Amino acid sequence: MFQTFDSPSDAPAIPDRLKQLRTLLATEGLAALILPRGDEHQGEYVAPCSERLRWLTGFSGSAGIAAITRRHAGLFVDGRYTVQARAECRGGQFEFPGLARTALAPWLREKIKSGGIVGFDPWLHTVSEVERLRGLLAAGGLTLKPTRRNLVDAVWGKDRPGAPDGPVVVHPLKYAGRRAEQKIADVQKKLKEGGQDALVLTAPDSICWLFNIRGSDVAHNPVVLAFAIVPANGRAELFVAAEKINREARAHLDGVAKVSPPAELKTRIAALKKAQRRVRLDPDRAAWWFSRALGKSAVHGADPCVPMKAIKNTTEIKGARLAHVRDGAAMARFLAWLDRAVASGERVDEITAVQALEEQRAASRALREISFDTISGSGPNGAIVHYRVTEASNRRLQPGELFLIDSGAQYLEGTTDITRTVAIGTPSPEMRERFTLVLKGHIAIATARFPKGTRGLDLDPFARRALWEHGLDYDHGTGHGVGSYLSVHEGPQSISRAGMAVIEPGMIISNEPGYYKEGAYGIRIENLVLVTAPAKPDGGDRDMMGFETLTLAPIDRRLIEKNLLTPSEISWLNTYHAAVRETIGPEVDAATHSWLEAATKPL
Amino acid sequence: MFQTFDSPSDAPAIPDRLKQLRTLLATEGLAALILPRGDEHQGEYVAPCSERLRWLTGFSGSAGIAAITRRHAGLFVDGRYTVQARAECRGGQFEFPGLARTALAPWLREKIKSGGIVGFDPWLHTVSEVERLRGLLAAGGLTLKPTRRNLVDAVWGKDRPGAPDGPVVVHPLKYAGRRAEQKIADVQKKLKEGGQDALVLTAPDSICWLFNIRGSDVAHNPVVLAFAIVPANGRAELFVAAEKINREARAHLDGVAKVSPPAELKTRIAALKKAQRRVRLDPDRAAWWFSRALGKSAVHGADPCVPMKAIKNTTEIKGARLAHVRDGAAMARFLAWLDRAVASGERVDEITAVQALEEQRAASRALREISFDTISGSGPNGAIVHYRVTEASNRRLQPGELFLIDSGAQYLEGTTDITRTVAIGTPSPEMRERFTLVLKGHIAIATARFPKGTRGLDLDPFARRALWEHGLDYDHGTGHGVGSYLSVHEGPQSISRAGMAVIEPGMIISNEPGYYKEGAYGIRIENLVLVTAPAKPDGGDRDMMGFETLTLAPIDRRLIEKNLLTPSEISWLNTYHAAVRETIGPEVDAATHSWLEAATKPL
Repeated sequence: MFQTFDSPSDAPAIPDRLKQLRTLLATEGLAALILPRGDEHQGEYVAPCSERLRWLTGFSGSAGIAAITRRHAGLFVDGRYTVQARAECRGGQFEFPGLARTALAPWLREKIKSGGIVGFDPWLHTVSEVERLRGLLAAGGLTLKPTRRNLVDAVWGKDRPGAPDGPVVVHPLKYAGRRAEQKIADVQKKLKEGGQDALVLTAPDSICWLFNIRGSDVAHNPVVLAFAIVPANGRAELFVAAEKINREARAHLDGVAKVSPPAELKTRIAALKKAQRRVRLDPDRAAWWFSRALGKSAVHGADPCVPMKAIKNTTEIKGARLAHVRDGAAMARFLAWLDRAVASGERVDEITAVQALEEQRAASRALREISFDTISGSGPNGAIVHYRVTEASNRRLQPGELFLIDSGAQYLEGTTDITRTVAIGTPSPEMRERFTLVLKGHIAIATARFPKGTRGLDLDPFARRALWEHGLDYDHGTGHGVGSYLSVHEGPQSISRAGMAVIEPGMIISNEPGYYKEGAYGIRIENLVLVTAPAKPDGGDRDMMGFETLTLAPIDRRLIEKNLLTPSEISWLNTYHAAVRETIGPEVDAATHSWLEAATKPL
Repeated sequence: MFQTFDSPSDAPAIPDRLKQLRTLLATEGLAALILPRGDEHQGEYVAPCSERLRWLTGFSGSAGIAAITRRHAGLFVDGRYTVQARAECRGGQFEFPGLARTALAPWLREKIKSGGIVGFDPWLHTVSEVERLRGLLAAGGLTLKPTRRNLVDAVWGKDRPGAPDGPVVVHPLKYAGRRAEQKIADVQKKLKEGGQDALVLTAPDSICWLFNIRGSDVAHNPVVLAFAIVPANGRAELFVAAEKINREARAHLDGVAKVSPPAELKTRIAALKKAQRRVRLDPDRAAWWFSRALGKSAVHGADPCVPMKAIKNTTEIKGARLAHVRDGAAMARFLAWLDRAVASGERVDEITAVQALEEQRAASRALREISFDTISGSGPNGAIVHYRVTEASNRRLQPGELFLIDSGAQYLEGTTDITRTVAIGTPSPEMRERFTLVLKGHIAIATARFPKGTRGLDLDPFARRALWEHGLDYDHGTGHGVGSYLSVHEGPQSISRAGMAVIEPGMIISNEPGYYKEGAYGIRIENLVLVTAPAKPDGGDRDMMGFETLTLAPIDRRLIEKNLLTPSEISWLNTYHAAVRETIGPEVDAATHSWLEAATKPL
């Protein structure tokens, strides 16, 4: 499952692809075409057949949009990808004007004469995106127009990979905790409350959660790429190719939904429109195609599965705890091996480290997949927040450096995501001081109590306070939601400056403050936490929620400057390490066990 | 300046007033009239001639709206005023359906038949308010229509007090720190940047700040009630009655603005419209009348004086420090007297305490006015956040109770606002514990460092964390902006859950966490703080801002449970108390001085 993303080998073909595409633009009467990275389902990962942006530009990042005019080509990526995009698209075909959100419309207005038509694939952009861009282009006299087919696919032709055909797998009740029938009834109740006749679902994670199914259509997220319609009354309908469904899945789905070929989706949407049904559609998640096809029948409303899915049920919570014991044991074996290997002078580099960690996770025999491409950064590479090691960037772990490893696993019981920062040899006093400041932020989140109604943005400053005091900070959020054997990034909750969603009991969130010194080292300490039920602290007036830390792996004591910690912070760390030792200890071999004893000794 | 608000003596006249108003409604063809508390300038305080809501309903609170139909009357107030409104409007004429924002439109739609017309005075509601309400009423088939005159004034008739005639006073450069000409040039630059030809100003604090003038038209805020027009090029125009302007003010204003009679405002607005000028108008602050009068010439835009006024210049900052030394000396004399009086068994009640504090402030001979009605609450009265003592509610300060006093002063150099909570006799362990938790929150704000871009809502949780840990909280914001010899509440900044405005260097904000145990006691510790310039902490990467505490008065050591404080919290308190002692000590009499020595002794 480990992948290295070196420059795509077909980079030399890109000028020709652009040329062919421009010929098509002329045929279609378009002044430009915009092409996003997303697919018809707007997820973070896409199948190979939907890697259109990479095929056309060479850029392999997980977010971005290209705009191709008759004479110019722009690639719009966010801050984390500016360096990578320039490296991967070196041919001089592309300009890099900035963020799509701010730079795309001005760039198009600059490059195209008033009256020009900009084409887009109506399946690849959300309703909100199209409405917004349409307004911005109209101000410059440009028209946004859906294309009848995907023009990049037309150029790609026969070389384009086929649609993914991962089988639909039942996600059993013993892992899901709630029957699909019940979840569908919950959704139908919401539709009735909203006065809506039906719901269109386009997000694979929502659909997999709702129907208790999983798949393997994209990397790292065990989802089925499918669409669904849930009527307020009556049987839900799932649109997925029949050949993906084996007998077991068929038996399960028969009880909960009608299964129809994807080609029938259009017919069904047309029928809903004709019958003047009120159809709920999430404008931030659904493709614009649905909005046009439904016309006045479309009612904008948030995907109701999102908040339901975010709050884990008792079974999912038990599963998450179990998954973290298994994952923690793998981490302990890996960290013990790493310390031994480094001490013995064995060569360990970023790639071999990733391989060793995956081996330990695979040894559990319960690993379904890693939950994202491991971030394995030593020394200066650790300071690149979205670093992915390549053969070219690979570095040996060297004494006096820090090694940051951010990884996760998909188990049937749950999804994990953990970052540890490890001292290779003797760390500098500055490294220890800054690691300890990050740890203080991590503990501040882990130990926070907070009332009902608290939003993620209310918690984020706790993670930064100690760093701020020393003139330090980090440029990413402190935490994201995590699915249950689903996406490692899921909403609506986040602990960040933008985290407006209210934090609810049963949510699983990452707690991952960091610090990055460019060209030198990176520090991040990440555990997953579960939001606990409101309860009144002794002697208090009001119920407070809090966090239960799920992740179980030692935090490198060699990097902790004890005199920067308060007694209660030291107590949290010692209690946490005791729990790690007691829970993980019985799961590991003797050598790891004795390493674990030392690694979790009280400070 | 101390006022008691007992039930208005003219309460028996209210049924007749309502009857007369209803006759007018019939004459005017209105199904209802809405009447807000605000005046033409939308400030927190209004002149006696604008106390229409109180005159018509008996309700004396600072916010609320009445709706009078032919048969029903509703009074819409927020949570802090529900008890007071019911007490003051006991005649049975009024219903209390809830908040104006949520309950007014539904109530009107329920009481009035479709097609009915709801009248409003176009000078008393902002543009945003009218637009919002109009939409909500239209949904129920009701029309919102401006009245040609104020119908309550028509009923009020000759008994209505005259317009306030407080003289316009120059606010000298030695206090204002920046010439009015320069401020006007700053505003004109903003207008040019926004492509606007002129600005209409309706907020008295903005106008007073811009022209460096002060007045005495309303209680506690030294403002002139006036309007102004600032063209992008050319001379500003101030609309204020000539008889309010003495020779000195005339000489000052001659240099910066044309002064015109208020009656000419309408002519000038009509001329701007006719000339098709683009006129900036703050939809959240300006009366709807302007929007109608300007028609297509109105450009919605925030009042540019608000952010400029919030950031104090060097002179205002020096003035604020000086004002706080003077105010701190008055507080020390008052607190010393209080301790002596209580110890000697002298009778002290909430009213005598307020009088004693005002005497101490007046003794400085620099007091212009108190900055708001003092909140003086002993025992259970301290738990009422917006408590104002009356003869009926007045309580003697009793041993074993807490006494909360929240007060402020207007000096030419600046505005103060301070709350202290004092132990009368021996406090209970619970009182000490909770006082200390509030103090921890106060210190967490006082010592916070934070990067550029930090909003008030990012800081608010620091003030609550210690309380949250113990299942406690308080239901108000942590801090509000404060003017410079202007309003004690000014925006845009606040430290609260809703505080989206970015905190900027030079802002003055209150730091006032609290805890309230209903029926028992209230705790609040309030200092004003100044936002310091960004600077890089030693060894740090990034500039951080912070707070300089301006308020100088002892925090009651008898209420502090030392073992709940961290060493750095104790150090902050001791350093703060040392500063209080050194700065205030030389300003007070011998008896106060020896009290101060004890009150500021290191913990």
